[in-house]
Amino acid sequence: MLFMVHMDVQVPHDFDAAEFAQLKAAEKIQAEELQRSGKWRHLWRIVGQYANVSIFDVNDPAELHDIMMSLPLFPFMTIEVTALCRHPSAINQK
Amino acid sequence: MLFMVHMDVQVPHDFDAAEFAQLKAAEKIQAEELQRSGKWRHLWRIVGQYANVSIFDVNDPAELHDIMMSLPLFPFMTIEVTALCRHPSAINQK
Amino acid sequence: MLFMVHMDVQVPHDFDAAEFAQLKAAEKIQAEELQRSGKWRHLWRIVGQYANVSIFDVNDPAELHDIMMSLPLFPFMTIEVTALCRHPSAINQK
Amino acid sequence: MLFMVHMDVQVPHDFDAAEFAQLKAAEKIQAEELQRSGKWRHLWRIVGQYANVSIFDVNDPAELHDIMMSLPLFPFMTIEVTALCRHPSAINQK
Amino acid sequence: MLFMVHMDVQVPHDFDAAEFAQLKAAEKIQAEELQRSGKWRHLWRIVGQYANVSIFDVNDPAELHDIMMSLPLFPFMTIEVTALCRHPSAINQK
Amino acid sequence: MLFMVHMDVQVPHDFDAAEFAQLKAAEKIQAEELQRSGKWRHLWRIVGQYANVSIFDVNDPAELHDIMMSLPLFPFMTIEVTALCRHPSAINQK
Amino acid sequence: MLFMVHMDVQVPHDFDAAEFAQLKAAEKIQAEELQRSGKWRHLWRIVGQYANVSIFDVNDPAELHDIMMSLPLFPFMTIEVTALCRHPSAINQK
Amino acid sequence: MLFMVHMDVQVPHDFDAAEFAQLKAAEKIQAEELQRSGKWRHLWRIVGQYANVSIFDVNDPAELHDIMMSLPLFPFMTIEVTALCRHPSAINQK
Amino acid sequence: MLFMVHMDVQVPHDFDAAEFAQLKAAEKIQAEELQRSGKWRHLWRIVGQYANVSIFDVNDPAELHDIMMSLPLFPFMTIEVTALCRHPSAINQK
Amino acid sequence: MLFMVHMDVQVPHDFDAAEFAQLKAAEKIQAEELQRSGKWRHLWRIVGQYANVSIFDVNDPAELHDIMMSLPLFPFMTIEVTALCRHPSAINQK
Repeated sequence: MLFMVHMDVQVPHDFDAAEFAQLKAAEKIQAEELQRSGKWRHLWRIVGQYANVSIFDVNDPAELHDIMMSLPLFPFMTIEVTALCRHPSAINQK
Repeated sequence: MLFMVHMDVQVPHDFDAAEFAQLKAAEKIQAEELQRSGKWRHLWRIVGQYANVSIFDVNDPAELHDIMMSLPLFPFMTIEVTALCRHPSAINQK
Repeated sequence: MLFMVHMDVQVPHDFDAAEFAQLKAAEKIQAEELQRSGKWRHLWRIVGQYANVSIFDVNDPAELHDIMMSLPLFPFMTIEVTALCRHPSAINQK
Repeated sequence: MLFMVHMDVQVPHDFDAAEFAQLKAAEKIQAEELQRSGKWRHLWRIVGQYANVSIFDVNDPAELHDIMMSLPLFPFMTIEVTALCRHPSAINQK
Repeated sequence: MLFMVHMDVQVPHDFDAAEFAQLKAAEKIQAEELQRSGKWRHLWRIVGQYANVSIFDVNDPAELHDIMMSLPLFPFMTIEVTALCRHPSAINQK
Repeated sequence: MLFMVHMDVQVPHDFDAAEFAQLKAAEKIQAEELQRSGKWRHLWRIVGQYANVSIFDVNDPAELHDIMMSLPLFPFMTIEVTALCRHPSAINQK
Repeated sequence: MLFMVHMDVQVPHDFDAAEFAQLKAAEKIQAEELQRSGKWRHLWRIVGQYANVSIFDVNDPAELHDIMMSLPLFPFMTIEVTALCRHPSAINQK
Repeated sequence: MLFMVHMDVQVPHDFDAAEFAQLKAAEKIQAEELQRSGKWRHLWRIVGQYANVSIFDVNDPAELHDIMMSLPLFPFMTIEVTALCRHPSAINQK
Repeated sequence: MLFMVHMDVQVPHDFDAAEFAQLKAAEKIQAEELQRSGKWRHLWRIVGQYANVSIFDVNDPAELHDIMMSLPLFPFMTIEVTALCRHPSAINQK
Repeated sequence: MLFMVHMDVQVPHDFDAAEFAQLKAAEKIQAEELQRSGKWRHLWRIVGQYANVSIFDVNDPAELHDIMMSLPLFPFMTIEVTALCRHPSAINQK
């Protein structure tokens, strides 16, 4: 089932730059794995912002929550989740 | 180039039901054509609302505007457009 | 899976009172059936408002959407859906 | 009587991790006790957020306030309380 | 127990003036009775607005809801309810 | 004349606890004195929040401002003031 | 004592134009009288909007409320009142 | 001097289509004249909305207000005005 | 030409008190000079808040911007500017 | 293609002043280069705020995003992007 997730990243100005770079690199690896697994179906950057909009395809809401909590940048994110379903005019199954 | 579009439909209670049904049927035909053309890449229903979130792949913002204005339900919609671009952690080109 | 749904009802002042009473009676019957089926697990009135907060237990988001669309008062409602999951400190499974 | 409570937790990035872990463990113990006592009737995690939505069954608003103030994570929470009552279409007494 | 209630009245411009005057007169009678009964403890006009802020002293939230629903002007009001309790620095019991 | 005042207290996590306890104790003394003087007519806690709603009876807005500025916790408060007047349906003079 | 008042006028599209013109003319007469009396000390148009920001000098909040209620365009206005007082850096008494 | 103006057009569904078409044609003529005069320096459509963002170059705020009030679609617009000035990093005088 | 300016001051709790007192004293001197010059025509305190609402009479928006930037407390202020003009019902020229 | 960008700068009070001055100088150089290249077509200061509104003319949204990310003050900015297109009443091509 599909959920749209909006993630907005805020980094405090006094946060250690090297530590944040490590978290960011770890986030990238995890995001790529989740995309390859098919769970993280789409990942787009919002133009001009340190933010993204994503589509997740998960077994249930609990799986989505576990994925979000496991992201290295989770503590820096404001997250909004929107449940989606098939639109009657959509020509694809999903 | 990609844009996320949020469309929220509000039908006035005193609007003629038959006329609205016609507009809705015309909207469906047009939405399906735009999906087949590849312009309207994704179309999802927001759960519990007469609203959708969509991804459009257009040549430029003007083309997106012309598409939105051509929708039969445009006069009933509140629309928000968000410009997207490739995320550095996205594994697909687009 | 569980979703919290907030429903706020707005009745236009010029809407026919008898017709609305019929819709309301039909809504009551349907709400009671959905509660007996276990789909509509909780239904509470928000004090001082023509609004409710509910917990639905559905197979997937699409089922929730179909339920919401089938409600006789749907055209009069502003609806917000929040996906829920088990809290790590909750002592019950669900 | 029933109240819906929305709790949103914000942890400052420079807060001591060990101290916060202790507060979180204490919060879990207290939340479980309150659930067993029947005061904290429902506790759900909001998907994708360090936040929960809960239903409390208390003798009066003052008791709810005392419970909220006693939570170890209270200083980190933004809290909203909504008074509930029985919905005319609810099939259960409460 | 005490609740603060904010009531904001909106009258549609095409609503029958005589009918509204009747509702308003009935509202006044009922408001005065509820004040004499001690349920509606305080009633203040917000300066410059067709709105009031009130303090109700009721047995439980359900009673407050019934009172609000019984007000002749209820269909024209936007209502917000805030649960109150004794402040530790308050010198009066209530 | 009457004013409703909403005070919301936010304490930074790195503020010295002992110093804040002193400010809080001083605030309590001053709040009690102002209540005894009749200036601070009502003081209620908002359930679940470090916030209060109060009714002040002052000679003019300037006196209210001076009172608010004199509160030891003023620097930690977000304050909103609403001017009140007698409601035509109120049975008491004030 | 001084209050800042923000008045925003919304005219329904189906309201009778002649009737509104009469109300507007009556409003103008009354506004000019109130200015001459010294009660309505300042009256400015907000650029680009059918709205104004005003400063009233009244004996008490009740007088301000009576003035606002007496304005012919009151039923079409959204009004916000802000209590003012002397600023410590102001070089004039008022 | 420069002002940014955001104009959002809302047409009631029951407004006469022919009358609106006339207003729209008159608006177009006037907008073009104001552009030729140099007063309306820029006029852009916001993608997906019946709205525009414009830059006006006027002698003073009063002139801008008169221009806005003279627009045939003014009664259908929600307008926000933002005063601009030269940015220290701008390479052009204006 | 006239502009209304709303200034809201927020002082971080860890800011040096003596340094802030100096800034505040400098602000007061500058505010008084600007009032004497006629540029800062009105300055009122908003009751209960560390905020003011002011009316400036400047040659153009750029002059207003320079004045605001020159205020010693500018870095601590949230500022909103509203362009004003003569109201058709105002009895004074300005 | 054109995008309107609103940039609002917030500098933390404890940020090193010399370092910020360097970032600001670098920002100025880059802004001027981008203006000379024609990418940053307009740059205006919002009166009374450390904020600007700009018009960018870029090849695609990705180029706009790269430009924004390259700005030395990007970490201090809140940015909103609005896609624009030609208005039917605009007399200039762009």
